[in-house]
Amino acid sequence: MTFGFAITARCPHTRARCGAFSTPHGVVQTPRFMPVGTAATVKGLSTPQLGETGAQMVLANTFHLHLQPGEDVVAEAGGLHRFMAWDGPLLTDSGGFQVFSLGAINRINDDGVVFRSPRDGSRIELTPERAMAIQMALGADVAMAFDQCPPYPATESEVEAACRRTHHWLERCAACHNKADQALFGIVQGGCYGHLRAESARVVAAMDLPGIAVGGVSVGEPAEEMHRIVRQLGPLLPEAKPHYLMGVGSLREMAIAVAQGFDLFDCVLPTRLGRHGTALVGGERWNLRNARFKRDHTPLDASCPCLACRQHSRAYLHHLIRAEEMLGRSLLSLHNITTLLRFTTAMARAIREGCFAEDFAPWDPASAAAHTW
Amino acid sequence: MTFGFAITARCPHTRARCGAFSTPHGVVQTPRFMPVGTAATVKGLSTPQLGETGAQMVLANTFHLHLQPGEDVVAEAGGLHRFMAWDGPLLTDSGGFQVFSLGAINRINDDGVVFRSPRDGSRIELTPERAMAIQMALGADVAMAFDQCPPYPATESEVEAACRRTHHWLERCAACHNKADQALFGIVQGGCYGHLRAESARVVAAMDLPGIAVGGVSVGEPAEEMHRIVRQLGPLLPEAKPHYLMGVGSLREMAIAVAQGFDLFDCVLPTRLGRHGTALVGGERWNLRNARFKRDHTPLDASCPCLACRQHSRAYLHHLIRAEEMLGRSLLSLHNITTLLRFTTAMARAIREGCFAEDFAPWDPASAAAHTW
Repeated sequence: MTFGFAITARCPHTRARCGAFSTPHGVVQTPRFMPVGTAATVKGLSTPQLGETGAQMVLANTFHLHLQPGEDVVAEAGGLHRFMAWDGPLLTDSGGFQVFSLGAINRINDDGVVFRSPRDGSRIELTPERAMAIQMALGADVAMAFDQCPPYPATESEVEAACRRTHHWLERCAACHNKADQALFGIVQGGCYGHLRAESARVVAAMDLPGIAVGGVSVGEPAEEMHRIVRQLGPLLPEAKPHYLMGVGSLREMAIAVAQGFDLFDCVLPTRLGRHGTALVGGERWNLRNARFKRDHTPLDASCPCLACRQHSRAYLHHLIRAEEMLGRSLLSLHNITTLLRFTTAMARAIREGCFAEDFAPWDPASAAAHTW
Repeated sequence: MTFGFAITARCPHTRARCGAFSTPHGVVQTPRFMPVGTAATVKGLSTPQLGETGAQMVLANTFHLHLQPGEDVVAEAGGLHRFMAWDGPLLTDSGGFQVFSLGAINRINDDGVVFRSPRDGSRIELTPERAMAIQMALGADVAMAFDQCPPYPATESEVEAACRRTHHWLERCAACHNKADQALFGIVQGGCYGHLRAESARVVAAMDLPGIAVGGVSVGEPAEEMHRIVRQLGPLLPEAKPHYLMGVGSLREMAIAVAQGFDLFDCVLPTRLGRHGTALVGGERWNLRNARFKRDHTPLDASCPCLACRQHSRAYLHHLIRAEEMLGRSLLSLHNITTLLRFTTAMARAIREGCFAEDFAPWDPASAAAHTW
């Protein structure tokens, strides 16, 4: 069996579990954060540096890679793994989220979406079949179904229509996806409407795909809404499949989701914050540009094994950010990704050691920080 | 003896030699290119990556570090080595070149230079004593004398005045420099005027410092002028001291200079070209943005051991540059620095093996490329 998901430990007090998701490029130990490599590169990190963060599965964006360099070039190179020199598991999103958030949409109907390229204005059509063809050409280990992610806020009837379309598209994705060494994950939508979420979970679960994702969260809704969705959906997802909460990568939200049985997470925030000079330290966000770091010769985070923390001081990182040096942006990105990976690894250890409920749920930054990362 | 220069091999047909320059932070095997780490970072490279290029001695700029973060901060951190986490030999320039090329000069006289900071417009005075104090605070292994580098073109009397001032300032630098674990190098000026160059070489050599540099080349003069200066000065420099040709880092010019007994080189070009998407390959400059690389899945330079060449294809590098990804800029910088270091290492090997004159002098790109790097 090319793909498989084995649950290796369970928290006795919550739905949290440790899992091993097998892919053709190796096993992903869950729960685990997945860094985002939008254009076939995690911004600012070389692949050896990416490996040092503890990353196992890495994301890439179908929308961006279709526009540049084109999936034909990637396929010619031998696929995305060869192209970006990442030998571990890879996942591509379907492009749906980017089409709806970045694209200048010309037409959208049950067939698919026509939009203008933000690069050169050319007309691009994306359908479930096209999204599958592109992802099969890219050749990641996991492909995501083409879905319609409604904006927030949206009316109940808008979200209901998007759900219906998403489910219809999922059937078409599954019908045309035929690549044995690539798993297709379905996506649960439903916005903030509980009954639509429940219905979507039922429909997507019934497809019995190798994994299931929850999309349409972290799109602008209040944190409490997101927590409510996560708490509602946790028990409704098929136990034996990996659960991927899309676009979520803050400590608190990952802890709440792991307690509900979610396994995989992704978020552009660690690299975006890093590029803007912000470091994730002890659950806080520190702007390294701030003058208080000018003469602080201590490590950024003494507990962190990343290159930025092991080798450099806050004063040096402050200097690099002030001097607008590339190295500052890349060291902070490295640190932030390492931090999220250490956090999900710490949760996995806590689940195995039976202290997850005490240390991570209910979420308390102090007790999480006290837990040995 | 903290500093020493031992000549370990000689070319029987030219003035080329291999040397071992001992510093408190290790031995520099010459001839060797020195990457430029302007603001205490070689742009785009982490220090482990810098080590992988074969770099031994690295440059940093006194002018930039004085403005940001300030030498007091660097000294407080334990000096430049600790601050930038580079444990190998370091050299700081005197700031003179930057003052004369970047600064808005208010006043210049025999005492020193007053200029306005390009950062915040504040008034800064740089004198030989101040330049020494800053460099002693930074704590590199080698400090450079504060000199006046005349522009090109300049009249004979302008260059003569700049030489006189440079020699006077060198005496003041030597008089106030008192850091046993830091070597002071003098700088020969003289523009394109042979008799001024000869006189300057005589004066600077007479100071009997641990090293001697030639400045005021690669400032806009025709290549033939530079070659003439290098050929004239080679035999005039004190044999037993390391010879540093400042600001020169092209293959042809380094080969010509090594044939004249020069040992050390620096240049911002490899990182500047890299940031702009240009790679040094086989003596040529390739713009990776060019469409001809879009589907070229071969390594950038199959003979090069750097990460960019070992792990990635021209098509991937092309994609990164087109997508304006940081990684593209940093991989090309890494490759370009590696190329210059491999080139100087190849010259060293050729000197030891007795084939330098045949393979590198007179300069012929084909025979140099044929030489196993």
